[in-house]
Amino acid sequence: MSDRTRFQLDQSRLPKAWYNINADMPVPPTPVLHPGTMQPVTPDFLGVLFPMNIVMQEVCQDRWVEIPEPVREIYRMWRPTPMHRAVRLEKALGTPAHIYYKNETVSPVGSHKPNTAVAQAFYNKEAGTKALTTETGAGQWGSALAMACNFFGLSLEIFMVKISYHQKPYRRIIMENFDAHVFPSPTDRTHFGKRVLEEDPESPGSLGIAISEAVEVAVTSGGTKKYSLGSVLGHVMMHQTVIGLEALEQMEMAGEYPDVVIACAGGGSNFAGFAFPFVHKNLTEGKKTKIVAVEPASCPTLTKGKYTFDFGDTAATAPSVKMYTLGHTFIPPGIHAGGLRYHGMAPSVSALVNHGDVVARSARQLETFEAAVLFSKTEGIIPAPESAHAIRAAIDEAIQCRESGQKKVIAFNLSGHGHFDMTAYESYHHGLLEDYEYPDHAVEEAMTHLPKVPAGS
Amino acid sequence: MSDRTRFQLDQSRLPKAWYNINADMPVPPTPVLHPGTMQPVTPDFLGVLFPMNIVMQEVCQDRWVEIPEPVREIYRMWRPTPMHRAVRLEKALGTPAHIYYKNETVSPVGSHKPNTAVAQAFYNKEAGTKALTTETGAGQWGSALAMACNFFGLSLEIFMVKISYHQKPYRRIIMENFDAHVFPSPTDRTHFGKRVLEEDPESPGSLGIAISEAVEVAVTSGGTKKYSLGSVLGHVMMHQTVIGLEALEQMEMAGEYPDVVIACAGGGSNFAGFAFPFVHKNLTEGKKTKIVAVEPASCPTLTKGKYTFDFGDTAATAPSVKMYTLGHTFIPPGIHAGGLRYHGMAPSVSALVNHGDVVARSARQLETFEAAVLFSKTEGIIPAPESAHAIRAAIDEAIQCRESGQKKVIAFNLSGHGHFDMTAYESYHHGLLEDYEYPDHAVEEAMTHLPKVPAGS
Repeated sequence: MSDRTRFQLDQSRLPKAWYNINADMPVPPTPVLHPGTMQPVTPDFLGVLFPMNIVMQEVCQDRWVEIPEPVREIYRMWRPTPMHRAVRLEKALGTPAHIYYKNETVSPVGSHKPNTAVAQAFYNKEAGTKALTTETGAGQWGSALAMACNFFGLSLEIFMVKISYHQKPYRRIIMENFDAHVFPSPTDRTHFGKRVLEEDPESPGSLGIAISEAVEVAVTSGGTKKYSLGSVLGHVMMHQTVIGLEALEQMEMAGEYPDVVIACAGGGSNFAGFAFPFVHKNLTEGKKTKIVAVEPASCPTLTKGKYTFDFGDTAATAPSVKMYTLGHTFIPPGIHAGGLRYHGMAPSVSALVNHGDVVARSARQLETFEAAVLFSKTEGIIPAPESAHAIRAAIDEAIQCRESGQKKVIAFNLSGHGHFDMTAYESYHHGLLEDYEYPDHAVEEAMTHLPKVPAGS
Repeated sequence: MSDRTRFQLDQSRLPKAWYNINADMPVPPTPVLHPGTMQPVTPDFLGVLFPMNIVMQEVCQDRWVEIPEPVREIYRMWRPTPMHRAVRLEKALGTPAHIYYKNETVSPVGSHKPNTAVAQAFYNKEAGTKALTTETGAGQWGSALAMACNFFGLSLEIFMVKISYHQKPYRRIIMENFDAHVFPSPTDRTHFGKRVLEEDPESPGSLGIAISEAVEVAVTSGGTKKYSLGSVLGHVMMHQTVIGLEALEQMEMAGEYPDVVIACAGGGSNFAGFAFPFVHKNLTEGKKTKIVAVEPASCPTLTKGKYTFDFGDTAATAPSVKMYTLGHTFIPPGIHAGGLRYHGMAPSVSALVNHGDVVARSARQLETFEAAVLFSKTEGIIPAPESAHAIRAAIDEAIQCRESGQKKVIAFNLSGHGHFDMTAYESYHHGLLEDYEYPDHAVEEAMTHLPKVPAGS
């Protein structure tokens, strides 16, 4: 252990390869099913949505995948990101535990999302793609992809969940500053959007609807537009592992190794990015680190959902994958952690939870904000509500250590800052936020819409 | 020259002392005058506003002043900050120049302001102060001091310029999150505020008015409250030099030395913090770096103001210092660089400009935002409108290099990010921003309110 409190790797130590957990999965892979036939898809089918270099990454079994130099060149603008020891938070908690956090807030758009946005923009550029479509909730993903497309000269259409489009204008302006075209979803630009608007002209939108719109635009573009997704899929998980790979080196600088590794999980990319390199050590080197995925009690995919095949989007036009899901028709309550409101979870993360390699827990909104405020008052940084779920879990682990006297080493990922979520903090301070626990019967109801899966899948 | 693009000092290389330019000033110091008598003040007078340890720093002549360990401990949470080479910006400009920028956006509140906020909170705590008062315009200073007071357990009252209080709620929420009490100024909490409201109940406020209110509260508190200022004074300039001292080391890492050093100047603290260590090299080691202070054309203190004694605040209750000033009754137009709208300028910066050691230039609002957008599209980071003035000047220097073929090394300070200024960007993109050049006759008019100064000062 060192007496330093911030561990900064030199640019020269930026990882040269991503970690691909496909190579180490303790369970066999599950297929991706065609949304119409529910039969395993061919690469050609995925090739309508994604360029072939990304499709190949999706099925790649190599443990290490080289990070292309143009991607590393852009990573180096802010990576390696710092890792901090939260000594002031430890002191406030009176815990003997050591708490570390990886600080992804220092990226230009303030979150971990550019790690895959830059890679996807690069691979699309390489494949000759001229234009991308995507969706975004609160805007973290949209602003990251907008920056990346701007760097590589790609055109970008973003379907932004309508309620966020109007309530969170700042991130929309960032996307537009990077020349992206941003539309409040549901729109009248797609058949599915029109259908939603016919049923409910006042629809506030949802991530599932926005995905359906973005997918539809790509699929019906006659090959001129590709689609980009900011979470869930294997290549996205892999691109994010640069976070955890750096963190491994930084823990070594600190002279410690984590007993507990924590990250919040919405679609799974932030969790995978930080935790998979530690899972790798568990799986291949006999390490016994407890790996924790934290989700909101109001969108309890891992803790109350079902592990089965489901569609990635509301319109049931995106491929179906085996994952923990609340049902693709699930509309989450309007909590402030916009990035954690997806009905499903990355198949890789889901499989590891199901197999017992990863522990899932949920946190309620109020206790999450309580943790966020304590963190900001001790460490200065105002966290994104998403990241605050990981802080809550880290604090709970540290409190347990205080009670048991154990000197555990706890590491979590601070996936983003809360600069664009300040109104949520104001609501919290004024007692206007509520806890919303998703009731069991509602989970049951949502899951009646799950697709029928052929035997043997 | 190295092929690296980001220069990151290890925590262990955080400067151990601030640089005090008093020791090297090429001209004799000018006195601080009592606002009533216009005679030089005694330390006791300043002692009403500031604790004696800060008053002593104000008159200190030591070249190097040790940074107390509790201050360094907090600095280390984000310092040393990175220095970047803006290779993508250079490429976009087609310039042979090398452009470097120091990145103060990575502090928890996103600007350079905590460098002095933490120091001032520490010295006040040491001196037994329980409560501080201050003012803030757009909120960069207020949020920095709120964080610092929260760290040291001091109570804080902030008078926030009313128009910003209502238009920029996010920074107010940050201050409140750190337990500061924030009031829209002019308020009815002070005699001066009441007087302003009687004359104009709809007054949008100004920094000068807010300073008067914060000073009044401290002066009339019977010694229970001290006042804290985020710019202009000598101790503030000195605390900020940690920026330039790090930058000197980072330029050495890069294997280059700047031909041109640029920073924006409002009250002068950001400029002094970055530039004074380079001025020191010019004054004592025969370096010939061109040192440039950039201000808005709409608040042309250095380029159109008068070098004379003037009050620091609108009510003429704060001490009077010799500086470039537009007159303490000056109300600047509502440009978006809120941090650059002060009527005066730090005496030290003013003296160096007057003596020819620092070059002053102004930039208009539209060309400043044009530079900000180009910077964000190439380097990813969305700059604060204040910092964009430095970017404008750096780009202009780089364009000159393109035309002359000179390979100059240009370094500027990116003092803050623009996350809380996104509506200004939207206005710019929609063609709603205007240039506002302060007309000469209006400058003349404002300066008819300058105080009478005794002969010999």
